[in-house]
Formats: sequence, C-alpha cells, structure tokens
Amino acid sequence: MVAHPTKIELDEKEMPTAWYNIQADLPVPLPPPLHPGTHQPIGPADLAPLFPMELIKQEVSTERYIDIPEEVQEIYKLWRPSPLYRALRLEKLLDTPAKIYFKYEGVSPSGSHKSNTSVPQAYYNMKEGVKHITTETGAGQWGTALSMSCEMFGIECTVYMVKVSYQQKPYRRALMETYGAKVIASPSNTTASGRKILETSPDSPGSLGMAISEAVEIAAQRDDTRYSLGSVLNHVLMHQTIIGQEAKLQLEKVGDYPDIIIGCTGGGSNFAGITFPFIKDKFAGKNIRVIAVEPAACPSLTKGVYTYDFGDTGQLTPLVKMHTLGHDFVPEGIHAGGLRYHGMAPLVSHLMELGAIEARSYHQNATFEAGVTFARTQGILPGPEPTHAIKAAIDEAIRCREEGVSKTILFNLSGHGHFDLGSYDRYLKGDLVDIEYSSEQVQEALSHLPVIA
Amino acid sequence: MVAHPTKIELDEKEMPTAWYNIQADLPVPLPPPLHPGTHQPIGPADLAPLFPMELIKQEVSTERYIDIPEEVQEIYKLWRPSPLYRALRLEKLLDTPAKIYFKYEGVSPSGSHKSNTSVPQAYYNMKEGVKHITTETGAGQWGTALSMSCEMFGIECTVYMVKVSYQQKPYRRALMETYGAKVIASPSNTTASGRKILETSPDSPGSLGMAISEAVEIAAQRDDTRYSLGSVLNHVLMHQTIIGQEAKLQLEKVGDYPDIIIGCTGGGSNFAGITFPFIKDKFAGKNIRVIAVEPAACPSLTKGVYTYDFGDTGQLTPLVKMHTLGHDFVPEGIHAGGLRYHGMAPLVSHLMELGAIEARSYHQNATFEAGVTFARTQGILPGPEPTHAIKAAIDEAIRCREEGVSKTILFNLSGHGHFDLGSYDRYLKGDLVDIEYSSEQVQEALSHLPVIA
Repeated sequence: MVAHPTKIELDEKEMPTAWYNIQADLPVPLPPPLHPGTHQPIGPADLAPLFPMELIKQEVSTERYIDIPEEVQEIYKLWRPSPLYRALRLEKLLDTPAKIYFKYEGVSPSGSHKSNTSVPQAYYNMKEGVKHITTETGAGQWGTALSMSCEMFGIECTVYMVKVSYQQKPYRRALMETYGAKVIASPSNTTASGRKILETSPDSPGSLGMAISEAVEIAAQRDDTRYSLGSVLNHVLMHQTIIGQEAKLQLEKVGDYPDIIIGCTGGGSNFAGITFPFIKDKFAGKNIRVIAVEPAACPSLTKGVYTYDFGDTGQLTPLVKMHTLGHDFVPEGIHAGGLRYHGMAPLVSHLMELGAIEARSYHQNATFEAGVTFARTQGILPGPEPTHAIKAAIDEAIRCREEGVSKTILFNLSGHGHFDLGSYDRYLKGDLVDIEYSSEQVQEALSHLPVIA
Repeated sequence: MVAHPTKIELDEKEMPTAWYNIQADLPVPLPPPLHPGTHQPIGPADLAPLFPMELIKQEVSTERYIDIPEEVQEIYKLWRPSPLYRALRLEKLLDTPAKIYFKYEGVSPSGSHKSNTSVPQAYYNMKEGVKHITTETGAGQWGTALSMSCEMFGIECTVYMVKVSYQQKPYRRALMETYGAKVIASPSNTTASGRKILETSPDSPGSLGMAISEAVEIAAQRDDTRYSLGSVLNHVLMHQTIIGQEAKLQLEKVGDYPDIIIGCTGGGSNFAGITFPFIKDKFAGKNIRVIAVEPAACPSLTKGVYTYDFGDTGQLTPLVKMHTLGHDFVPEGIHAGGLRYHGMAPLVSHLMELGAIEARSYHQNATFEAGVTFARTQGILPGPEPTHAIKAAIDEAIRCREEGVSKTILFNLSGHGHFDLGSYDRYLKGDLVDIEYSSEQVQEALSHLPVIA
C-alpha cells in the first residue's frame, strides 16, 4: 500500500522568491483610492507621511512579480515554507470522495499568516531609515506579528490595543511585550485624539477606529515614525501570495490541482494569499471555484454594497471602492475578532464584481462546531477565523459525497486558536449567540456612506 | 553564497518506524522496581490493573528496537517528522563559533513532546479493549496530549486536574474539553481518596500527588479502565526516542553530528527523547557531552540522592531507584510546571550514576531571560521548561566563543509557551523570585525516605 502523504513539505530552497501581484492580470484595473477631502485620486505624496516609499510603489505597481528581499526570505525561513496537509482523517470522518488539502499558517511564531506581511513591512521601513512604527490591534494577531518583525529589524514598535482587549487579553499584551513592543491601551492620553475621547468618555472601552486614529496621529507627526496596516491594502495582500504559490508547488508534488479554493475573509489578506496565485490561472482559463467565507454577523461581501467608503470610523483614511457595510457599522462581539471589519479589501471586492470569486456567510456556532470537529480529527486547534473556511470545506466535501463526485478542495488554515480558548469554552458551554442583521439594520448603516460626485 | 539551511525537514517517508530502547545497551541493567509493601521486585501481574500488557512488556523489554504500530505512525504524521532548526540568528547575536541546532516539538497539536507517548499509550489501550483512561495533570500539557490521543482512538478520557490549576488555567481545561475529555478538579468527590481529603480540607488547592491517587483509584476499580502516565516510566521515555532518532537523520543531511546535547529535566522524558539515541553512540565510543538541565528550585539530579523512593506523595506507587528529593518534597511554585517533580526517571538517574550524563541547574529568572532572548531572535516563544535547555545552550555557545572553539550543540525545544504568557508577564514585570534550597531543607525532605532492607 502506498499511502497518500499526510504532510507535503517544500525544502526552503524551493520557497518562492517573489510575491505575485494580481494587479498585473486584472482584466479591468482597480478603481483608484480617493482623497477624503477633495475626492480626487490620491498620489504617492499623500501617503508618504504614513508609509515608506517602497510600499507605496508596491501599492500601485502592475509588475506581475516583485522580488522578496533576501533579508526577508531569511526571516521567512524561520517558519516557511509552511506545510500543506491532506486532511485524510477528516475525509474519512465525512466519508467523502473529495480530497481535502489545507495550508497551515499557524506554524509562524506569531501564530497566523500576519507575519508574511509584517516582516517585509518592517524591513522596508528599516531600509528607509524609519526608527519607529505605530499600529493598532484588536484581537492581537497583527500586533504580535508586527512586534516580532520590528524587533528583528531593530525598529521600535508601539501598538495601540483596543482598551477592552488590553484588559481582557493580558496574554496577548504579554506576548507583544516579550517581542519588545510598547503596548498602549487605546484610547490613551498619548495622543490628541485619545485625550479628546477620554475627556468626554473617560471610561471608553475603545474601538479599532479609535486605535487607528491614535497610531496614525503619532506616525503623521514624527519624521522617524511610520504607520503599518495588517490587511486591506494591495501591498499587504500581495505579501500574502507566498501562501498560494507554495501551495501550488506542494500540490504539484503530489500531482494535484484544486477544483475549489476556500479562504475566510475579514479584511481579505489571508484569502488573497491562498487564492490570488490560482485566480491568475482562472483568468488564463482554468475552471476553478474560489469561495470567500465571512461571518453572518459581519457580512460585507454578502450583504454590503460595492461603493467608495472610508477605511476607518474616524473618516481619516482615503476613500476606497469596496464592499462595505458602512464605515460606522459596528459588528456585534463575535469571536472571530479578525473578521470584524466593516469593509473588504478593494482587490477582493473588485474580483467579486468581476465574477472571479463567490461569497457565503456562516453563523459562529456552526463554524465553532466545524472547528471542534477539525481539532478532534486532525489535531490542530484552528483559530475562530479559519473555522469559517473549514466549515465551507466540510460542506463542499459533503456535497461531493451526496453528488458522488470527487473534487479537490484546498483551504487556508490561517492560524491556530491557542489564544482563543475562552471562545471555545463559551461555545462548548452553549453560550454563543448567532447574530443576523435585518435588511433595515444594514440599510441604516449604509445610509451614512459618503457621497462621491 | 550557499547559505546553511535554517530548517532541516525530513520527508514523512523518512520518519523512524521503531523506538529505540536504551535498556538493550546499558552496561549495567536498571535496578528493578519494588513492591511498596513487600519491598520485593514487582512483576507484570502487579501492574496489570493499571496498564495494558503491551506497555508492561515494553517497560521491562531489552529489545533494542520496538516497532511503532502503523496506526500510531499515521497519527504521528499529523505533525512529525518535526523540524530541526539551526539557530543562525542566535549564533550571530552571541557571536559564537559554535553551531546551535534545536529540535522543535512545539509543532505537535498539543504543543509539546507529550503526544509522542500519549498516542501509542492510547493505541495499546484501545487494542486491548480498554474503554476509558484516567490520568492526572498539573500544568496541563500531559492532559492535553492524552485527551487528543484518546479522542482519536475512540477512548473516553478523564483528567484529574490539580484544583488550583483548574481554577487558574481555564484555557487549558477548555482545550482538553475541546479534545473531548472530561476534566475534574482534584480533589473531587468522585473518588474515596478525594472525598477523604475534602472531608478534612474542603478548600484544598489539590496537588499532583492527590490527583494521581484519584486517577489510579478509578483505574484500579474498573475493568474497562486503565491509568496513563506522561513521564518517568521506561516505556514513556522510549516513545520519546523518535525525537533524537529524527534529529540524527536531520543532522546527517547537513553532514553534522553534535558534540554537546542538552535537554531540560522534570520527569526526564523529553531529555531521554533527544539524548538516548546519541547516548547509544556514546556507549559505542563517541565522544559527546550530554547535559541535563533542571530548575534550582527542584534539583533532584544536582542535590537529591540516588535511592529507592515512592513515585508519589501518597506512597501508592512501586518503589523505584532514582535521584529524589524525597516523595514529600513540595517544590515552590516556580513557573516551569513540567519540571516540578520530586524525583527523576529511573533510566535517567541510572545514566547519571554510570557517568553517561552530567547535570546542572539554573534559577528561573535566568531561564526566562534566555527564553526572551530566544523569542526575539528566533521568533518561537519557548515554554518555561525548555528555556532551561536554551540557557544551557547559550552558556555553552558563549564558552565556545571565549575558548575559541567551534562545537556543535543540539538541544530539544520541547514545547511552545503559548499557555505560559502569565509567567512571561510576571518575569517582564520583575515579579519572579529565584528560590534556592539550603542543605538543611533538602536533608529534612530526604529524612522521610523509605528504608529498604
């Protein structure tokens, strides 16, 4: 008996040495971001106070491949290439003729795919002489990845952490501090925007919007400081494409190619990472289905509208064309913290409009159920975000059984759930509530969209 | 430039298919365990109520290699072969001519090396018709590994968790429950021994000794139930030898062999796993140093005596010859929970007596400092236990620099620290206290040793 391998590894010499830029292959170019005041397309100079020039260039580049700097590759090798698994035990449990593969990004030291972009972002900042990077974090995955990356390139890192998370997740804070970062509960008295909030609401629990304002304020004020974002932007999504490129090489090793590719979507970066290198083939004629999975409690792709909107609640960012629930939409406190963003990456939104991808949503109890099934069969405890992708993979595999067809399914397991056991505990106790928004609620949130001439 | 690889992987086809049994190569055989009542050597029948026969056989076997069942290999492949890393960034930081390699066992779903033995233990129990396994857990690593393994072989698992840990570590409990186990705070009213304690001390915080008594009591009473132990015993240590065997194959791939091998020691199992396959070569004439590293707060190898003692505080287990601080020695609440055992595995103790290994101890602040240095350079956050091995590896690498010699150092990174951030937090805040016992204190603990005729 020649068993199918459980784990397909690449040697580090086989690791891709360039990121794939889907902007080179778009049949219709991406609508430009607009200045929040003038509503005119913004240029590099508008972004220069916040980002190093190399990242601004990548944001608008239409080069198909952009080389990964050698210093970044060296850090990647601390956990990359990441393994591709065949979920043999899950297939058996489901009694499905489908083949289920998953790429596992939880092997990174920060526990998720976020390090794939935090490392190059820290690197380019270092190359351009930046001494200090600010960012915000909610659940803490992004803050952890950036803290580690800054430490490795000798850059100071300040993380504005939403106050309620700061208080409820002291271990995430401790992890960022272990990686040498300064973590500040937001709103704080270190910025004008923070002080303004504290004046009127001294007990404010904070929000991602407020934390962004604080981080951006510091970066804009100081010459040696820049700001860093963990999702949504084009260059961030591009850095993640190493995931899908590796997966393609790994599938080649076992003579396979996916019929269905699945990723969960919050801001869109892990979804882009696993799918964009395959969507390239789809544009060239390959017959594949690409499925974005989002929480029913934050349904930007399935219930939002495709229009220009602000990236933040504070209306400080450029306007970008995306699927949005409105910049002042506040999703309920579901446990997939990384999927609670009112909008969707412009590139992912654009691909949805072009018909290159499809979207669906699930309730959180169903996704945690899938997560527990996965942990009990495959061992790995998934983060609450990728349980959305697991749920879709299970549903597709069951459909294969019902229809008697064998398909090859690939999904991205974007991170582990070691810091999310409080949520698993509540799920097991039956304490999680499923939330669905009425069309009236969505309409209300959408009524505050900016009007573009 | 041909760079040295950062990560050396084995294909799963290269995974060893047998465990190495060091009892085959001991120049002097291991002293036998004695019955706690008669002080006579115990036989298989004495252990049959607690363990399946195959594990009892392995406990006393002198076969050099014991085949790993195919079903166990299939589960191992969910995370094995585990990666061997060259710590290039740490070497650079230390400016050492030494080469530092580490084997990383934190890739297992339970986060530590413990699954290497929990999987075969659950398997052999399943093969012999056992329906239910009981065990105890303190910090939770062992309970997590056994929960997952039992679930995978369709066996019920009950974990008696020391009450104070049950209350302070709800996430570890939630993880075991996610893997399908029943977790009971010990002392409990589910056993006679638990009820007896609760009668006199209703608020008892529990102890590992009490939890062992409860787990053993249930196993001894029920025909379909057995008991499982995560360290100390010969068969448990043998199951861990896959670590060192893989490391040897991985080092061969880069044409290397260690001069110094380092592991931390609590009960002795991860140390045995990385070192025994190399000690085999040492017995055959290889010139290597093997270093066991223990906490200064629980110094069984460096301050204990080599004698017959009980494995538990309750004096229920057989007497085994080992380095011990006395069965009623209660180590202070240091943060490397996995290293707080009063004794040392008989095999490790025996090798110490034979001069095959050396031992040293470190204080916890020094080990956490090494752990933070490691996380900041190599990314991975180590568990508090393997920070002891890291500290020793760093010290040896610095000595190489000072003496101007290049040695090859190999250590075992037995698990990650994702569930230990409370301890890192206290370290970073300067709240950890280093504990050293006076010879009077050790003498007092040793004064209760059993007297063997």
